[in-house]
Amino acid sequence: MKNRIQMTDISPVVDGGRFAAKATTSDVVEVSAVLFREGHDKVAGAVRHRPPGGDGWRELPMAARPQDRFEARFVPDEVGAWEFQVLGWTDHWASWLDGLVKKHQAGVADLSLEFEEGALLLERHAAGDDVPAEQVSRLERAAATLRDDAVPVHQRVDAARAGDLRQVLVAHPDRRDLTTSPTFTLWVDRDRAGFSAWYEMFPRSVGSDGRTSGTFKTAQSRLGEIAAMGFDVLYLPPIHPIGHAHRKGPNNTLIAGPDDPGVPWAIGSEAGGHTAVHPDLGTLEDFDDFVAAAGEAGLEVALDFAIQCSPDHPWVTEHPEWFRHRADGSIAYAENPPKKYQDIYPIDFDTEDIDGLCEELKGVLEFWIDRGIRIFRVDNPHTKALPFWEWVIDEIHQTDPGVLFLAEAFTRPAMMRQLAKLGFSQSYTYFTWRNTKHELTEYVTELAHTDSADYYRPNFWPNTPDILHEYLQSGSPAAFKVRVALAALLSPNYGMYSGYELLEHVPVRPGSEEYLDSEKYAYRPRDFHVDHSIAPFIARLNELRHSHRVLLGDLRNVWFHGIENDQLLAFSKTAVPADVDGVAGDAVPGRRMPDGPVPLDRLVVIANLDPHHAQEGMTALDMWQLGMDGVDAPYDVHDLLTGHTWTWQGPRNYVRLDPSAGEPVHVFHLRPHL
Amino acid sequence: MKNRIQMTDISPVVDGGRFAAKATTSDVVEVSAVLFREGHDKVAGAVRHRPPGGDGWRELPMAARPQDRFEARFVPDEVGAWEFQVLGWTDHWASWLDGLVKKHQAGVADLSLEFEEGALLLERHAAGDDVPAEQVSRLERAAATLRDDAVPVHQRVDAARAGDLRQVLVAHPDRRDLTTSPTFTLWVDRDRAGFSAWYEMFPRSVGSDGRTSGTFKTAQSRLGEIAAMGFDVLYLPPIHPIGHAHRKGPNNTLIAGPDDPGVPWAIGSEAGGHTAVHPDLGTLEDFDDFVAAAGEAGLEVALDFAIQCSPDHPWVTEHPEWFRHRADGSIAYAENPPKKYQDIYPIDFDTEDIDGLCEELKGVLEFWIDRGIRIFRVDNPHTKALPFWEWVIDEIHQTDPGVLFLAEAFTRPAMMRQLAKLGFSQSYTYFTWRNTKHELTEYVTELAHTDSADYYRPNFWPNTPDILHEYLQSGSPAAFKVRVALAALLSPNYGMYSGYELLEHVPVRPGSEEYLDSEKYAYRPRDFHVDHSIAPFIARLNELRHSHRVLLGDLRNVWFHGIENDQLLAFSKTAVPADVDGVAGDAVPGRRMPDGPVPLDRLVVIANLDPHHAQEGMTALDMWQLGMDGVDAPYDVHDLLTGHTWTWQGPRNYVRLDPSAGEPVHVFHLRPHL
Repeated sequence: MKNRIQMTDISPVVDGGRFAAKATTSDVVEVSAVLFREGHDKVAGAVRHRPPGGDGWRELPMAARPQDRFEARFVPDEVGAWEFQVLGWTDHWASWLDGLVKKHQAGVADLSLEFEEGALLLERHAAGDDVPAEQVSRLERAAATLRDDAVPVHQRVDAARAGDLRQVLVAHPDRRDLTTSPTFTLWVDRDRAGFSAWYEMFPRSVGSDGRTSGTFKTAQSRLGEIAAMGFDVLYLPPIHPIGHAHRKGPNNTLIAGPDDPGVPWAIGSEAGGHTAVHPDLGTLEDFDDFVAAAGEAGLEVALDFAIQCSPDHPWVTEHPEWFRHRADGSIAYAENPPKKYQDIYPIDFDTEDIDGLCEELKGVLEFWIDRGIRIFRVDNPHTKALPFWEWVIDEIHQTDPGVLFLAEAFTRPAMMRQLAKLGFSQSYTYFTWRNTKHELTEYVTELAHTDSADYYRPNFWPNTPDILHEYLQSGSPAAFKVRVALAALLSPNYGMYSGYELLEHVPVRPGSEEYLDSEKYAYRPRDFHVDHSIAPFIARLNELRHSHRVLLGDLRNVWFHGIENDQLLAFSKTAVPADVDGVAGDAVPGRRMPDGPVPLDRLVVIANLDPHHAQEGMTALDMWQLGMDGVDAPYDVHDLLTGHTWTWQGPRNYVRLDPSAGEPVHVFHLRPHL
Repeated sequence: MKNRIQMTDISPVVDGGRFAAKATTSDVVEVSAVLFREGHDKVAGAVRHRPPGGDGWRELPMAARPQDRFEARFVPDEVGAWEFQVLGWTDHWASWLDGLVKKHQAGVADLSLEFEEGALLLERHAAGDDVPAEQVSRLERAAATLRDDAVPVHQRVDAARAGDLRQVLVAHPDRRDLTTSPTFTLWVDRDRAGFSAWYEMFPRSVGSDGRTSGTFKTAQSRLGEIAAMGFDVLYLPPIHPIGHAHRKGPNNTLIAGPDDPGVPWAIGSEAGGHTAVHPDLGTLEDFDDFVAAAGEAGLEVALDFAIQCSPDHPWVTEHPEWFRHRADGSIAYAENPPKKYQDIYPIDFDTEDIDGLCEELKGVLEFWIDRGIRIFRVDNPHTKALPFWEWVIDEIHQTDPGVLFLAEAFTRPAMMRQLAKLGFSQSYTYFTWRNTKHELTEYVTELAHTDSADYYRPNFWPNTPDILHEYLQSGSPAAFKVRVALAALLSPNYGMYSGYELLEHVPVRPGSEEYLDSEKYAYRPRDFHVDHSIAPFIARLNELRHSHRVLLGDLRNVWFHGIENDQLLAFSKTAVPADVDGVAGDAVPGRRMPDGPVPLDRLVVIANLDPHHAQEGMTALDMWQLGMDGVDAPYDVHDLLTGHTWTWQGPRNYVRLDPSAGEPVHVFHLRPHL
């Protein structure tokens, strides 16, 4: 009769514990489980957790919720692999007390047997090992009162219910029939993993005249403006030497001219491979200076980790065994039949020297980590052996658990999810292709309100060097504003690729998502100081992200509301007061639960998805989800973008957004009238 | 780089393999998994399974479905614990062939290197251990053709795609990088577990004059009529001696008169306990005769297994340690404070002699199994220690895997599900309290279309001796007909308690779900030959259940359809042709899948949930789910209850059901015009 307490639905647990759930050091982690046993006896639960390398468990009581669910919350305030367990046991004292009180309330006259049994419970517990010496007398005193016929019955009942007695018994429970769950792992990242605004930039374009390369030195000129826009992470495509063999020309033409710089992802030349910088950009010291200057501006530099080689990469001659050889002895280049990518040699993870290869790749990461880089955007991880990622991320984390990895996979859902399970800190998403109200609602709801939120941290990008979505190709400023506002306000992690603020929108040809004169194949110097730049709009979004906790750290606090127009999208983000031991006054991201408190802060975003026409409609707000229980009470909505304020009442209110006059998005701060 | 193939979402798997999924010997079991790997290479999958005690695996190829899903189906045609695994590997040949065909179709002129590599693939595989000697030459011949420059290119491409070559490679695949899932258990019951109609009867009432007991002999008189109604299982409440101490009188009064028979669940007297029969009912030999007579009539007898004792039970004196003793030395009776059940002593699963107790309880089951009983309805299993159930069901199944257990738990959802996971073959449900369209749709959808369908087999009861639902208390024949029709047609397992066919509907008091003059406390002789009996209606339902495969064995083939009236409920049951090796022409229960075939048989049930008024409305049938792709094509609907036929067209058709004229339910057999 071991494990009498049944435990199911323990959360956050990924694939039964095969993988770690994720959190950051400022997240409020809610552990929940369904605990029950046979019969009518009451069950109690606790969570115990320990930090990375910790030698002792810390225990938290779980609160009972409806339907046998128990919950506890804590903030894992240290980076690394935390562990937790759920404990369950029969609460004999509470079961006894419940019966006593019911009988007393029903007017049962003789409770002496009940009192005797309660006293015995206390005495037995006091005699055990679980109660510290200084508390034993409290239990013994209570037992004596229960037995004391001179004390009136109602006073003995009150003595049994005394708060301080309860406190002792909660702190030192009687758990003869303790059931303990397996130990689960919670991987805790630094906060940057959960909240980041990325800006992607090719340094070679900054300071270029279009024919010669910009450098790490010239690129420093952009740092102040990028930081002023409020970005946190500056992501650089590969900075390594670029191969000559089969180098691509402008607009992906097959023949490059002598001045064409080539594709940064065709890594490696006589000047070096993955641990070298392109001589045109400067030296490693120049790189260090750039990283330091970025850091001073408030930008953390992220590098690209692209496991592939140009035919001129040093590994091709030093380690030909790391590449797949064809029947004629040639090295296999990348193909997607009938397309050929002769400038790229994929690495062969079926190589006999898999150990040597893995060590070398890990060494590449360590090389840059030693130079202060702690974020890697990983190129096409879904075309590399997945066991490698699980191994290398774990290896790197052994030494520096603060290193972050963003998975650049745009492929089928199972692979996207698996990469996150295997250890990637953040993941690209389908956001770029989700443009309608229905698409956005479905997709964001899936990311926010299914189990994937336990391990998959989405990073929303309205554009990338590979993706200029048709939605943006009209060049409408409203389109660009709406898409970046959705990215920045829906997802705690988002990013954009340089030029977006300038409304760059011309595709290489109709129907293509490639940019005309793509920076992937050419220098692309830009004048950022033009009137049509939406940099101030983006700066305001990032300012809101930093000043409103509800936009921090967790996608789970998003909630979609009705609005009677298919071109208008309405969603809210709310934060509720924390119910966490030692985190007084903090905020808990998270969907409002039936027994949850009233939100501390509420934003309602309404976006016009039609960049060409004014759209109007009546809202159908979920007032309960907003914590606005009086459905008829008036409240102010203050637009944080324009500064306008309206007084609204109840769920139904009129909204009109005209892309030709004003912003295409409202970001309303709700202010209930007091 | 082991386990290169990623495997997720393997089904049917319960709690990661902690518990067994369930099937019956006539179920078509669909094993599915999401299998994928990095890059563009193709993945192949297989399921291997073995019967109970089998020494060899049988392997089935899995078919590829969208989104990396793979499926295989088989019929586990033997009772007991089956095992299965999912296998995944890279299909190098298919990957190569795909590239070849794409290049050929794109007009690539020189394919000699591709042909050489294909030939090498075949030769390497032929040289391995996986290909039987007689097939090696087929591979070598294909390799030679691929290399033969004298053969035109298109013929070499055709040779690579040849069906017989593919057959050899599918039967004997090249799986150097085989990944194997853990081994999962599938518990296979005899068919009765998946398809049964239960009739509950107190033998003591049959042949009673109201003051003296009927017997096993007199109760035989009912067997023919029960069998004629089409029931499969005859369930008897406890048949054991009934205690005298604190015996309850009629209508649960505290004092029994000298002729009051007491509650059958107060088990045990000087005449014996759980392995005795009540002397009033006859002898063990009379019981055996009754079981034999039932069997001859086509009825399998199910007994009640109620682990509790009257104070007069022999165990109370022989094994006082099996009961909980209070502080004053008395044995604790059952309580739900402030209610007392002094006629019942619960068993104490915290007894020191837990081993002796468990063996004795198992012995009770074995005693009745030895007398030919193989179905037990278990009384209140959720008040007994759950580890006991897991142990005892497994122990019994070691000897006789055909023994079935029905869990009579009406409690919270987690407990209901857990009992099913621990081994119960069937489970009572909330059906009795789900009466509205919304309630029925939500609840049946949950049972049919969530993971619980893998292990939880619902048994729907419109009434029990404890539950006369308010819905029935008007006594309307339409109410009784609708509820039994829903039970019988929605769920493959259902049951009813004697008297239902006579429309017994008077509660002990207003607001109570207890019957007036409940048979639990008194003899209740009945005249079954009255005009208002709905026995013929019930007989017709059971006849339909036996003659339409779509009503067999699995709840998963239910699908709710729209109908524009909240009092009308519409659902269908369909069967699609089996895609199972060796099960040609059979039928697969199951919701229609996007790539599924057209159903072989289709029933559409439309019920008027309002027993007092005529209701009418337009249907909104999901024609695709019905496999009726031509939405405008006419088809006949033939009512299997009344014999009427109408011609319908498309999804929208008029329905009117009048409880005062005709049946309150249509059971339509759909017949598309050819």
